[in-house]
Amino acid sequence: MHFDHAGIATTEADSLVFLFEDLLDCEVVHEELFDGMKLVFLDLGNGYLELLEPTGEEGAIARYLDANGPGIHHLAFATEDIDAALERARDRGVDLIDEEPREGAWGHDVAFCHPKSTGGVLVEFVQH
Amino acid sequence: MHFDHAGIATTEADSLVFLFEDLLDCEVVHEELFDGMKLVFLDLGNGYLELLEPTGEEGAIARYLDANGPGIHHLAFATEDIDAALERARDRGVDLIDEEPREGAWGHDVAFCHPKSTGGVLVEFVQH
Repeated sequence: MHFDHAGIATTEADSLVFLFEDLLDCEVVHEELFDGMKLVFLDLGNGYLELLEPTGEEGAIARYLDANGPGIHHLAFATEDIDAALERARDRGVDLIDEEPREGAWGHDVAFCHPKSTGGVLVEFVQH
Repeated sequence: MHFDHAGIATTEADSLVFLFEDLLDCEVVHEELFDGMKLVFLDLGNGYLELLEPTGEEGAIARYLDANGPGIHHLAFATEDIDAALERARDRGVDLIDEEPREGAWGHDVAFCHPKSTGGVLVEFVQH
C-alpha cells in the first residue's frame, strides 16, 4: 500500500488548478464529471491531488463544503488487493462506508473508511 | 516537487500508529519531540504520514484540535530548492506563514503557506 492521492474539496477547481500547477510544479492528467462533481487530478510524480468541485447543491462534497469550507477532504492509499484491505480494516474494527469496493473516479475500484474510526481521517482505498 | 507527507493532528498518536501500521501496511521510521509536539513519521514507500500530537495545551496543533478535532492538518511537498518554491509562491501572491525557510521536523528545512490563499489547504514546502 502506498500514497495515491489527497482529495481537496473546492468551489473553484479551475483557479486552484491554475495556482497548483505553478506552485507545486504539477499538471492536470485527468478530468471527469463523476457523481455530481467535477474532478481534476494533478500529477505530483509520486501521487496525485484530486480536486473535487460539486456541480450542484447536493452530494457529499457540497455538504462537506457547507460544513467545513474548502480544504483537504480525504487521503487515498493505493493497494493491489482492495478486498484484502477491506478485510484487514474489518478485522481491526474500522467502520466502513463501503462494505464492498465500488467504481470510483477514473474507473478505479474504491472503498472509504469512516473517519470516526481512523483518527478523523477519511481514508480511501483505491485499486487501479 | 512531489508529495512528501500528509500531517495528521491527533491526541492519540500511539493508538493511531498501531491502527495505521496494520491498516496501511506501513511502519514508523522516525519519532521526535519537536516544538511542543510528539511527531511520528510512518513510511508509505512513496511518502509519509506525519502524526502530530501536542504534548501540552499550547501551540498550533493544540489550537487546531480544539477548533477542528483530529484529522488531516496539512500537505507537504518536497522540493530541491525551497527558496525558489517560496519565490514562486510570492510571485503568485500566496500569503506565506514563513517568509524564509526554518528548521522543521526531522531536521529538514520547511516553510508553510497560509491556507487562505491555497484553497483552504495548509501547504508545506520541505527540503530534505
